[in-house]
This record gives sequence, C-alpha cells and structure tokens, in this order.
Amino acid sequence: MPDRDRNPPSRPPRPSPSPGRGRATRYSGAPGKRGDRAARGVTRFAHGRSGEGEGPAILYGWHTVSAALENPARRFHRVLATENAARRLAETGLAPPALEVVRPDAIAALVGPEAVHQGLYAEAEPLPSPPIEDLDPHGVVLVFDQITDPHNVGAILRSAAAFAVAAVVTTARHSPEATGVLAKAASGALEYVPIVTVGNLARALGALKERGFLVIGLDSAGETDLARIELTTPLALVLGAEGKGLRQLTRTTCDQLARLDLPGRIKSLNVSNATALALYIVTSRLAAQR
Amino acid sequence: MPDRDRNPPSRPPRPSPSPGRGRATRYSGAPGKRGDRAARGVTRFAHGRSGEGEGPAILYGWHTVSAALENPARRFHRVLATENAARRLAETGLAPPALEVVRPDAIAALVGPEAVHQGLYAEAEPLPSPPIEDLDPHGVVLVFDQITDPHNVGAILRSAAAFAVAAVVTTARHSPEATGVLAKAASGALEYVPIVTVGNLARALGALKERGFLVIGLDSAGETDLARIELTTPLALVLGAEGKGLRQLTRTTCDQLARLDLPGRIKSLNVSNATALALYIVTSRLAAQR
Repeated sequence: MPDRDRNPPSRPPRPSPSPGRGRATRYSGAPGKRGDRAARGVTRFAHGRSGEGEGPAILYGWHTVSAALENPARRFHRVLATENAARRLAETGLAPPALEVVRPDAIAALVGPEAVHQGLYAEAEPLPSPPIEDLDPHGVVLVFDQITDPHNVGAILRSAAAFAVAAVVTTARHSPEATGVLAKAASGALEYVPIVTVGNLARALGALKERGFLVIGLDSAGETDLARIELTTPLALVLGAEGKGLRQLTRTTCDQLARLDLPGRIKSLNVSNATALALYIVTSRLAAQR
Repeated sequence: MPDRDRNPPSRPPRPSPSPGRGRATRYSGAPGKRGDRAARGVTRFAHGRSGEGEGPAILYGWHTVSAALENPARRFHRVLATENAARRLAETGLAPPALEVVRPDAIAALVGPEAVHQGLYAEAEPLPSPPIEDLDPHGVVLVFDQITDPHNVGAILRSAAAFAVAAVVTTARHSPEATGVLAKAASGALEYVPIVTVGNLARALGALKERGFLVIGLDSAGETDLARIELTTPLALVLGAEGKGLRQLTRTTCDQLARLDLPGRIKSLNVSNATALALYIVTSRLAAQR
C-alpha cells in the first residue's frame, strides 16, 4: 500500500459547526465548550475533498449513501440517483426531498469511470468531530498513527462498525479525508463510527489514559501476543502506518505493545487485515470475560 | 472496492513453460503431464502485465523484490536498484549478478510517481501454476470466486502467507494478474503461496472435494458461524467477489456456507479483512484440535 500524504499543511483549529447543524449526532454526548476543544488541540476533522478540508464530503455507492440518508445528523447539499436507485430508495423509505434523478453517466462524470457508484451520489456536510471527553467510558476505540491509504482507512472503518467500535481517533494531518474512495470503502461506516480528530496524537493518548483507557499499540515486535494479553475496558488499540508502523513517541506512550502471532512465513499483515483480526481477538476475549 | 474486470478474454490453455524454467518450484510436487492438465481445464496463470498475460511480472518494493530474489524458481529479466537498495541487498547476501544500479527517478519512471518502490524494481518470469493434484492433502487452501481488486487480492495473499496457507485457487478470467500493485500488496507472498489457476471454478471445487477437501463458502447469509462449524483438513475456504459475494453455482457446490458473526451495525467486511479473520479462526481452531 502506498504511503501517500494527501493532507494539507497544518492550520489553526477552525470554528465548530454552528449548533443544530449536525452538532448533536447520535454518537456524541453533550458537546464540550468550543474554547475547551481548541485549547485541547481537538480540531474539526477534514472531511472535505479539497486540500483545504473545507469542501463537502463526496459519497457514492448504495451502502455509503443510503446509510448517510438514514443519519439525521447529515446535511446534504445535493443527492443524485439513477431511476433504478431512486426507486430502490423509495422502496426503502429513504427518498430525500431534493433528489435529482439523473442518467448513470452523469454520476460517472462526477466520480470517474472506474468508481462503482451503483446509481447513487451525494455531497454532504462533513460530520463533526466529537471531543475525546465524550467517548464511551466502557468501549473499544481505535487510534490511527498516520495511516494514509484511503482504501485501508475505509476498510478499517467498516470493520470498526462491524465490531461496534465506539470511535476512531486520528490526527488532523497525515490522514486521508472522510470522502470519496475512503467513504466508499467504509460502506456506510462513516455514519456509525464517530471520528475524533486531534492535533497531537501523544497528547490524545495521554487524555485517553487519564480517562482510564488501557492503551495497547499493535506492533510486530510487541512483547506479548494480543491473544494472551490481559484486557480491560475502556480499551484503545493503536495502529501504525503502512510500512512504517508506530512512531517512536507513540510506542513509548502506549501502556503495552502487543503483536499478532502468525504461523506462516510473513510476519505482518496489511494494516486493515491486522485491525480486523485485532478487533476480533479483543471483542471475543472481552465478551468471554463478561 | 471497485469491481473491475481487468482480464483478457478467454483463450485456450497455453503450453507449460519449458522444464528448468521455473517448473519445479519449492511449492509444487511432481508436475502432472501437460496433456492431463489441459484436459482438466487447468491453465497457466496470467502473471504478466499485458492484456495477453504474457508479459513479465513487474515487482517493486523491498519485501516483494527481496523475496523474489530469494526464490530459486524465479527467473529475472532485469533487476534495478538504487545505490542504497543495492547496498542493503549486498548486506543481505542477495545481490543478483546482473543488477543495474540506477537513480530513484529511473524506477519511478517505470512504476509511476505514487508507487512506493523503496529503490527496488524487477521484471521476472511469472511463476508456474501447480496442478490441483499437487496440493498439500493436509493443508488449508483459499479459493477466489472472481475477486477482482488487485489491492484486495494482494492483501489476501499476504495474509495467506502469514497463516501458512497451502495454496490459492483462482480462475484464469475475472482475476487480476500477479504483478504490479497486486505483487506490492502481497509483500513477497507471491513467492510463498502457490497460485493454482483454473478455467472453471465449480469443476475445481469438485476436484478438491474428490481429494477429500471440506469446501466451506464464506457467505454473510451462511447457516452457521465459522467459529462454530465442525472443521476438518484438508480444508478449502471459498471467498466471493467484492460486493457480489459467491456466485450461485459456487454456493451450491460448497459443502457448507459459513458466516462471520459480527456484533456491530455493519454485517459484512471488506473481502481481505474477512479472509484474514476467517484464516485466524480456522487456523486457531484446527491447531486446538491437534
């Protein structure tokens, strides 16, 4: 997987979206005060397509768009559907008021000829980033240490939704935006898994530890097999970048480093494959402890 | 994940490579007679980059190229390395005789500016496809039912090597070639996991069943949780295409259909994530039975 940095240069935190504009999502609890969030370095996640992170989120594909239409926190700029897709939406009770019915090639012209849009396309407001303080104090969260490939991040978000992960924590820089191929690969998971975007990862890990999270970094040189480590909740699993793994400061900030024991000749997995496996191990072991 | 068909139209089986040209790999046992293989519809896998499947395999990236250099069955047309990579190869005892030392941009010009080549590039003969009859009668094999995305197939091959899978069975058509981004995502796994290419998947599943394989299809509507199904070896796990899943004929040919139980709101995973999970479940359960 290529390690591409598609992110814009650092910029000061932007104002939070105005109240009533998707602020109170199904995920976040009571939002913190805006001043607090800026002081903690919690910035708004760059969901847009443009380099500025200010554009709308581009959503296409059946699962991606229908999940967004079901999310009361999503605000749409426009929704395009082919005749077939519009009929299917209506059958599902999902027809948005301002739906534009178009020919398939009108959508292909927007997303490119190779993208599998399944007759559905939408431009929507990015979802807000909840503050770290609002995270479920009993759940499992994933923390991304500069995972850059949007297909990988999308697949991980999909697995996160499949394993009922409470949230994903990611850095504002060195992370792909929650739009386009990432949103397609996430297959609707953007609507189910809140994304907490932070300015400084080590500080965010510190904040998680203060809130009682056990912070485990996944590392092929970890001292313990994840399947044998003692687990408690709330739990944060920290995942390193494709190729590079966890950064040194991230490694030293984790409570423990755990490896995945693999019996074959290759000793590390693609990061999204590793994450799916780690989530399975962790959720089955936590369920067995209950 | 886009479902792209990058394969050439059907064509008659080509002659096997001449003896001594990579025929006796570390994976295959005694090769069957050529006439037998053609009669069984077992064709040579299209490893090349061109639409004809006749070009060399394009390999780049440290793991991909160094694993190929360690494989005595690989025959190289050319190997390019940057000065740094050439030094690292020499330190690892891997310096091939005809190595060309080049500047990084010479490799970038061949693989594209976004590809992470890590200073190593090679063009090599595709590896031969062993016949189904040579498969390990005690192992686990993966069967691909038209998985088309080369990143997914590469990641699955990497996981297959990590879980010591005996082989991968795939169709000649509707499968990406073992070159380029697939080879990079496989991270060396092309050298460790033999790929058996077949003309007709249902017939190949029949051949596996005749040889005693338990054939389990992964399907989100499967009647049993894979973690609870009774497992025996040899075992074939059949994986469906992104989005479409297993074809009807494939489903009816499997001995059983198994699902992965997922506790969250999304009930299916990216195919490479699902495969990693399935391999973990299957290999841990089989190891516990021993």
